[in-house]
Amino acid sequence: MKLPDAIKNAVDFSKGNGLITAIAQDAASGEILMVANMNEESLAKSMEFGEAVYWSRSRQKLWHKGEESGNTQKIRGIYLDCDGDAILLKVEQIGGAACHTGKRSCFFRQLEQDVLTDVGVQVFDPAEVYGK
Amino acid sequence: MKLPDAIKNAVDFSKGNGLITAIAQDAASGEILMVANMNEESLAKSMEFGEAVYWSRSRQKLWHKGEESGNTQKIRGIYLDCDGDAILLKVEQIGGAACHTGKRSCFFRQLEQDVLTDVGVQVFDPAEVYGK
Repeated sequence: MKLPDAIKNAVDFSKGNGLITAIAQDAASGEILMVANMNEESLAKSMEFGEAVYWSRSRQKLWHKGEESGNTQKIRGIYLDCDGDAILLKVEQIGGAACHTGKRSCFFRQLEQDVLTDVGVQVFDPAEVYGK
Repeated sequence: MKLPDAIKNAVDFSKGNGLITAIAQDAASGEILMVANMNEESLAKSMEFGEAVYWSRSRQKLWHKGEESGNTQKIRGIYLDCDGDAILLKVEQIGGAACHTGKRSCFFRQLEQDVLTDVGVQVFDPAEVYGK
């Protein structure tokens, strides 16, 4: 599947050298789960599958979130920002955790003054999920 | 003010060529307001002022959000993600709108199939605020 023209014309992949910022938010709780990148193909596949497919900058390939852990993200809504270089996915997070550390959200370190505090909720043990 | 070492060591500015992704979320409602970028100086100033200061890629300078419109973002919490290249600001949005279009959130266009629908809440008239 390719991106429909109306969508393609509204999304600005140029500012990020082919990538846009994608934020995943829990559709029910409103909690921010993670942020990643998408290229045109990953956005098209996300819309086709109804599940989040990102572009991994470190691995330089498509990344169907949860393909290994089973913790996929079912898309409940997609929203584009005013200048077209970021999208918001409202998702149902299967397994209850988005982060590879097993935390519910990737944003589990609170920054105050000169201290970082772990305020995350541990959902699974990454050694059990990835350590096969 | 400079970033304290403990913070500086945890934040990864390298992957984004000196920039990290910054998401602003309404601290009360959980609504995602906008996404922008920060460099080291803008993060230090945000922590110093308690208000969001971004780095404008298009203008290549520090951008104290709301400096023109008055719609500043009072920071209620800062959270760093697992790999240190994105932060989440929980904010109180002064004036009730984050977007330069006068909408409450920048993510006001819903994407479905091949259609974009404006689902935004108009808070102010940008011609009145910026058209001086």
